[in-house]
This record gives sequence, C-alpha cells and structure tokens, in this order.
Amino acid sequence: MRLNALGIHVILELRECNPALLNDYAFVRSTMIDAANSLGATIIGESFHRFQPIGITGVVAIAESHLSIHTWPEYRYAAADIFTCGTSVSPREAANLLIHRFQCKDPDITELERGKLAVLATADR
Amino acid sequence: MRLNALGIHVILELRECNPALLNDYAFVRSTMIDAANSLGATIIGESFHRFQPIGITGVVAIAESHLSIHTWPEYRYAAADIFTCGTSVSPREAANLLIHRFQCKDPDITELERGKLAVLATADR
Repeated sequence: MRLNALGIHVILELRECNPALLNDYAFVRSTMIDAANSLGATIIGESFHRFQPIGITGVVAIAESHLSIHTWPEYRYAAADIFTCGTSVSPREAANLLIHRFQCKDPDITELERGKLAVLATADR
Repeated sequence: MRLNALGIHVILELRECNPALLNDYAFVRSTMIDAANSLGATIIGESFHRFQPIGITGVVAIAESHLSIHTWPEYRYAAADIFTCGTSVSPREAANLLIHRFQCKDPDITELERGKLAVLATADR
C-alpha cells in the first residue's frame, strides 16, 4: 500500500555557521526570500525581527507552505524549517541554499512527511 | 552528561478535525493568536491566507519562536507547528488548545529538541 503525504517538512539544524551572517538582518531576510523563491512558489507574507543584543527570527509564508528561521549567532547555530506541499517543488534545494549561504559546516537535515493520511493511499496523486 | 536544547518544536498532526472550523479564516486566525498568547510571548508578526476553493495557511511570529498552520478541510486535517525557546513556556499547552479548538479526534504530537548543542551541556541553564 502506497501512502502519500500532503506535505514535506524539512527540519534543518544549522550548526557551525558564520556567526556574522546569522546576525545580519538584511542577509538573513534576503537569504530566506531567495530560498522561498527557489521553491517556485508565491510569497504571501513575511515577518522578520532582530533581537537585542543578538539573533534574528523570521517566517515567510508561501502558498500552502512556509519557511522559518531562528538564529543564535552566539552559538553559530540556526534552526530552519521548510514546509512545502505538492510534488513539483523540492525543499531539499532550498535547504542546500541555506546551508551554503550561511556557510554551515555541520548541517543536519531531517525530512518529515506531513498529512500522511490513509485516504491518500488509494488516490493516484 | 546533560544536553540542553535551545528550543522545543512541537509538530502536530491534527486528523479528524471539524472541517468547517478548518475553513473558517477568522476562527483559524483567532485560534492561532490565542495559542500564541497562551505561550505568554509577544507577537511580532503574522500572515494568514485563504485559499480558493478551500484551505487556510497561517504563520505567527513570536519573540524567538513561531507558530504555523496549514489546513486541508477536505481531508479534515491540519498540520500545525509550535516552536518555542526557553523553559518558561510550555508548547504543550498551546498544542492542547489547538486540539480542543479544532475538535480534533485523532491528534499526533511529536516533540523535537532544536539546537541541542554540545556547548550547552556544560552550562547550567
């Protein structure tokens, strides 16, 4: 029996990044928007915030999906998530873009299937 | 050795929800904002969108964390995420709020530790 999922959720643990980049508001925002665009979807909203003294948080809402990032420059670490729906878009490419841009030397990628519903098993999607 | 994490990420698979509620923009938005407020944190941004013919997506950015939801009323399903930082806030309470409000009869909760860094193991946090 083939079980299909409604979405793919990539969970990125970005360790050993360049801390200056993790604390650069404009860089973090443009990188996340580039990652969103690499998914080929339309951005429907975004929210970024700089913390004092350090750290940036941001979410980008895309049609039926989202990207998020929370950075801890003091630990050279960022937690990023890429949630996509449909099979036409590969979240892995966006994940690799984040790893490359933040100069991450110790990334960990976990891919979760979301909405793995029994009803989808019989549908030819 | 005690390993501490920077954040807790609750991944909610909300199956067998009330589909009318999943497609009610105002209800979904107010529920997510209530969940965010139940975390005791400050909302720094939000983005919600209604899809045609059906479905709602939304992200709420909170200080150093976020909540997101993507609903598929046609499958009585929603994918929700609650990401919180610090130990003073329990994401479980917000998760239970979502389960209750969407009248979810088959929820699945997965709790991930994010930013489980070796450097934190020696800190008394």
